[in-house]
Amino acid sequence: MNPRAIVKLSHFLNSGNKLFQRRLIGENGGNPFKLISCAGISTARQSYSADGRISGRIFADYSIFKGKAALSVAPVLPSFSKMDSGYTKVDRRGVIMLTFRPAIGERKYDSEKKQLFALSVTEVGAFISLGSGDSCEFFHDPSMLSRDAGQVRKSLSIKPHTDGYFISLTVVNNILKTNERLTVPVSTAEFAVMRAAFSFALPHIMGWAHSTNQVGDNVGRDSLKVHPQLAAASEWDR
Amino acid sequence: MNPRAIVKLSHFLNSGNKLFQRRLIGENGGNPFKLISCAGISTARQSYSADGRISGRIFADYSIFKGKAALSVAPVLPSFSKMDSGYTKVDRRGVIMLTFRPAIGERKYDSEKKQLFALSVTEVGAFISLGSGDSCEFFHDPSMLSRDAGQVRKSLSIKPHTDGYFISLTVVNNILKTNERLTVPVSTAEFAVMRAAFSFALPHIMGWAHSTNQVGDNVGRDSLKVHPQLAAASEWDR
Amino acid sequence: MNPRAIVKLSHFLNSGNKLFQRRLIGENGGNPFKLISCAGISTARQSYSADGRISGRIFADYSIFKGKAALSVAPVLPSFSKMDSGYTKVDRRGVIMLTFRPAIGERKYDSEKKQLFALSVTEVGAFISLGSGDSCEFFHDPSMLSRDAGQVRKSLSIKPHTDGYFISLTVVNNILKTNERLTVPVSTAEFAVMRAAFSFALPHIMGWAHSTNQVGDNVGRDSLKVHPQLAAASEWDR
Amino acid sequence: MNPRAIVKLSHFLNSGNKLFQRRLIGENGGNPFKLISCAGISTARQSYSADGRISGRIFADYSIFKGKAALSVAPVLPSFSKMDSGYTKVDRRGVIMLTFRPAIGERKYDSEKKQLFALSVTEVGAFISLGSGDSCEFFHDPSMLSRDAGQVRKSLSIKPHTDGYFISLTVVNNILKTNERLTVPVSTAEFAVMRAAFSFALPHIMGWAHSTNQVGDNVGRDSLKVHPQLAAASEWDR
Repeated sequence: MNPRAIVKLSHFLNSGNKLFQRRLIGENGGNPFKLISCAGISTARQSYSADGRISGRIFADYSIFKGKAALSVAPVLPSFSKMDSGYTKVDRRGVIMLTFRPAIGERKYDSEKKQLFALSVTEVGAFISLGSGDSCEFFHDPSMLSRDAGQVRKSLSIKPHTDGYFISLTVVNNILKTNERLTVPVSTAEFAVMRAAFSFALPHIMGWAHSTNQVGDNVGRDSLKVHPQLAAASEWDR
Repeated sequence: MNPRAIVKLSHFLNSGNKLFQRRLIGENGGNPFKLISCAGISTARQSYSADGRISGRIFADYSIFKGKAALSVAPVLPSFSKMDSGYTKVDRRGVIMLTFRPAIGERKYDSEKKQLFALSVTEVGAFISLGSGDSCEFFHDPSMLSRDAGQVRKSLSIKPHTDGYFISLTVVNNILKTNERLTVPVSTAEFAVMRAAFSFALPHIMGWAHSTNQVGDNVGRDSLKVHPQLAAASEWDR
Repeated sequence: MNPRAIVKLSHFLNSGNKLFQRRLIGENGGNPFKLISCAGISTARQSYSADGRISGRIFADYSIFKGKAALSVAPVLPSFSKMDSGYTKVDRRGVIMLTFRPAIGERKYDSEKKQLFALSVTEVGAFISLGSGDSCEFFHDPSMLSRDAGQVRKSLSIKPHTDGYFISLTVVNNILKTNERLTVPVSTAEFAVMRAAFSFALPHIMGWAHSTNQVGDNVGRDSLKVHPQLAAASEWDR
Repeated sequence: MNPRAIVKLSHFLNSGNKLFQRRLIGENGGNPFKLISCAGISTARQSYSADGRISGRIFADYSIFKGKAALSVAPVLPSFSKMDSGYTKVDRRGVIMLTFRPAIGERKYDSEKKQLFALSVTEVGAFISLGSGDSCEFFHDPSMLSRDAGQVRKSLSIKPHTDGYFISLTVVNNILKTNERLTVPVSTAEFAVMRAAFSFALPHIMGWAHSTNQVGDNVGRDSLKVHPQLAAASEWDR
């Protein structure tokens, strides 16, 4: 169930064609965060609100419709769980979901053949820090750690062109014997929208927007709820 | 009713006078997003709040008063509609509305002769990504797809000068036989305000500020409301 | 009562010592916005909350204590007024208030001799767009348009040094025959805090944070409250 | 109890290996802000909410798991206190807490041996303004001004490598005769996440997010609560 996530980040135009490849699983000695954040979205998304009410969600995709395919991007928020101690912590990190749909006629796109790619928090970091001319590639294995590990391989590549970037999703499925590639040319202006929107969304999918939105709770003199980390030890206690 | 929107984005100073022209309608193979986002503001703006109450709006323009004309900018928020499924989605994207008024005396500007130009989400992306020395031009046809298509043409150009930019709106109206041009010199400091304010407003006019402001709803274990996209398939299911 | 505000913005290190001076009053043909925004803070600050309750304010200065003087910065929010039409609009723009206090001993600063300088929205734009090596100067006449016009002149200068900036406030008072100059060396790190904090505060002092915080009001089908500008005419109606 | 905080900030790659060292205590002529902000976290964190309710906190760390150690970062919000005048002011500034844990096996990290380092507001400013190739070092003495001053010395260094930064925490404890060093290699993408998240958190740990979130309170005509600074004197009164 846990996807294999490999990031290849190259700055080949800006840094003299040097290609830096980082295989996160290898270098990390195991990267629990990556595994958790990516695995999260494979489970059913079900949630009550904090006060028990079920609230309607609001969806706001940003879509780019081009000749051969369309690309829609939208944030998927993290989910939280309450611990026995009474704290709430991030249970499953959020992602930026990219949805590609192939064109099947003028202004018509095939939702049946859509392909998804979920950018993790760190992949969003790579995306928003791309300089002009930089390139970037991410690899996901949706079946990682399952029986079918390695059977389906997805890669998302972001490559510069004269006015913006080509964003391509390749899905190689050895079980279905399919090999699909969907490419959407993204203009500088559209990329600027994505960068700004992803930067805005980043603290939200990390859960920081939620954890910092509690300033009013800090007014007063006493409390029974203390951060477990900070209760036991502060920097200055050692 | 749907306006024809064409974007010309040039980085002629930074990139050796190369002029990149992108005719969005042409290259997009049909750009529903553009059409929808631009058409939106021609309909009457009427809305109840989520709980049925009608609430007063708050307006906060940023205005630049110069010798020959004044320029005011303000965000116009998106509107949302509830689907049968219970979800709420963006119905009409927001814009940044630019209002030009010609000077008719010292510190007096003629609101009767005002001209509007609504920057779409992607045009705002082009605006905020302008480097110093970059230039940019947007074309709107307010009558696109109607009988009068091509009769009125608006273009907004942003051109660098030694300390900032000239922002000019040209409106050619073949029906009224008029040809108006209003130019406002914007200083580096004023442009920095606009860039920061537009960047702030971008996630709001896209609807992302609304869709990410629901973090508290994700605390819990179960839910009946699932994103239609995510309910049917997640990245890892394929 | 309306202060004379003149901005001198130079990029002398980055652009080959060219010095661009912009006297806003002169070039603007009258800049009502400047006058209003600056005059605002001379009136008493009194406000009820939207629902009639008087709420306690929260103050959070960022202070830099150096050998000869201390500098504290804090945002002052705009005030709003309800129009007969039922709309709410910005009545008085906010500012970033800079407070300088001279040192009178080790770690002691004299609040009796404090000097204030209120950065307007556009001056904040100049501040946050300063590149490394850039320099900037603002002039205020607190008595502008009054009998004492020109008697008191304040200027705030921001000049680069090897690790950060010198921020100096000079107050020449011809009535009291005083000439005070308070300078605080600000490190690169402290300046980065100010830049980030001012950028964050900018949409708030402009009133945009307030006007965009109404997304929920746009869900629905009908409304009686329409932006006067948009009700009468949209871009596409002409 | 008040820690000795010294900042060394060098831009040795970008500026030709010039090393700028700033010993804040020395140059500041006493830096009350530094002392307060750092000392703050050594006291127990206890707080009621503004309305007297005790609310559960939400925790959302961003963690990087590497071969030899793991690094988790999370914002710690400021606390506020009510003054007799009825105002609320920041009592203790927030920090970004860095937690290092050494690896004790594959994907296992030892929380018993964790080491903390609390980045103050100004240190966060140094962090987010690091250019590529820049380097930065912070020194803390958790026992400063106590009997054990100088016995424990912590230093956090951030040094560039080909794809990102090495973040190292060194803790020299003369009492326990220990000398620990924990280093985590942070990729460009992970550093971009930290930079974006820290930039987002900065106005929150400063208290500005709280103080600017009161815009609605400014609608009206009259108020009894006035900023003590602004009530006594505005810029234009002198």
